Amino acid sequence: MAGAVIIAYHRSMVRWEPGAKGRLGEAAMELFRERGYENTTVAEIAERAGLTERTFFRHYADKREVLFAGMGEVQEFLVTRVSDAPAELPPIEAVAEALVELADTMFDAARDFAIRRQAIVAANAELRERELSKLAAMGSAVAAALRGRGVSEPAASLAAEAGVAIFKVAFERWTSRAGPLPLAKYIRESADELALLTVRR
Amino acid sequence: MAGAVIIAYHRSMVRWEPGAKGRLGEAAMELFRERGYENTTVAEIAERAGLTERTFFRHYADKREVLFAGMGEVQEFLVTRVSDAPAELPPIEAVAEALVELADTMFDAARDFAIRRQAIVAANAELRERELSKLAAMGSAVAAALRGRGVSEPAASLAAEAGVAIFKVAFERWTSRAGPLPLAKYIRESADELALLTVRR
Repeated sequence: MAGAVIIAYHRSMVRWEPGAKGRLGEAAMELFRERGYENTTVAEIAERAGLTERTFFRHYADKREVLFAGMGEVQEFLVTRVSDAPAELPPIEAVAEALVELADTMFDAARDFAIRRQAIVAANAELRERELSKLAAMGSAVAAALRGRGVSEPAASLAAEAGVAIFKVAFERWTSRAGPLPLAKYIRESADELALLTVRR
Repeated sequence: MAGAVIIAYHRSMVRWEPGAKGRLGEAAMELFRERGYENTTVAEIAERAGLTERTFFRHYADKREVLFAGMGEVQEFLVTRVSDAPAELPPIEAVAEALVELADTMFDAARDFAIRRQAIVAANAELRERELSKLAAMGSAVAAALRGRGVSEPAASLAAEAGVAIFKVAFERWTSRAGPLPLAKYIRESADELALLTVRR
């Protein structure tokens, strides 16, 4: 199970596998950094990878897909973990635990990739909006998974949105520090901090 | 103070004022609903309002601006309220109180407009991404206002993101019900629910 995830992750998120898809991904990341996302064409990516445009389009719908394919896997991972969490786990704990597992399984070995990718996304308004849209979709999918566990509204949506907030803040801290702790640490810290903040007096 | 806000709100969010800007806004909303946002041109909006394109561009940068001008005012309102909240108010309470005041001042009289606008935004991917981008910017601005009150990170960002989550969920409930309660009620309900959810066992 975890093996399948790790393979998926290796394929699209960290080290590019030696196959065509991996070479195309690595070439795209290099070119995005060198000349900017806007100024990079699929033809150039294919050329840098020593492959044809046709091969590119067999693996990616467009150049944007190189940056966002991994987010689909992240969403699938979270939905599966939340759905399979022990029934007695309260909703926000189920989400926080899924985020911690996600961090351990898919992110910690890939911090350099995450930072490179973040810089490319941050530099382009269209990509930033795309990222937010994917995060919102992830929140909706997690809320649906919680409803599938019998959590009612608005609790399901609030727990899912709180999870997105925890992840965003933790991710930002994890990528912005020199010699950081594992991402899971920042996720736990953010979840605890949010709990302290929301205590009602 | 509240007066100024109410005027700003009347101008851009509810009833269109009788002036050119208001007529253009109302014409745009009609056309977006009748033929879809994509199929509406600025020329058609101006024609429907009985005005020229030049007049349109004196008031709005583009047709998208008709839908998003109000969000700038919302952000300004929240930042001001959070900054001016009593010093002893904990961060998330300062945010929740600002949202409640926002609901009372700028939203409750404008539910029909909010629903019409939401339907137009929901039908168009570009507009949905734009909306998410504005919400994210609002979260960042509120976090900055909290830091200005001496709140440290990650508390400031988490409180601000929690505020966005509370607002999103409350807004969704408020617009989707027949004969709804005031938006402020849903905001308080969501804030309480989030507090219950995050209680650590």
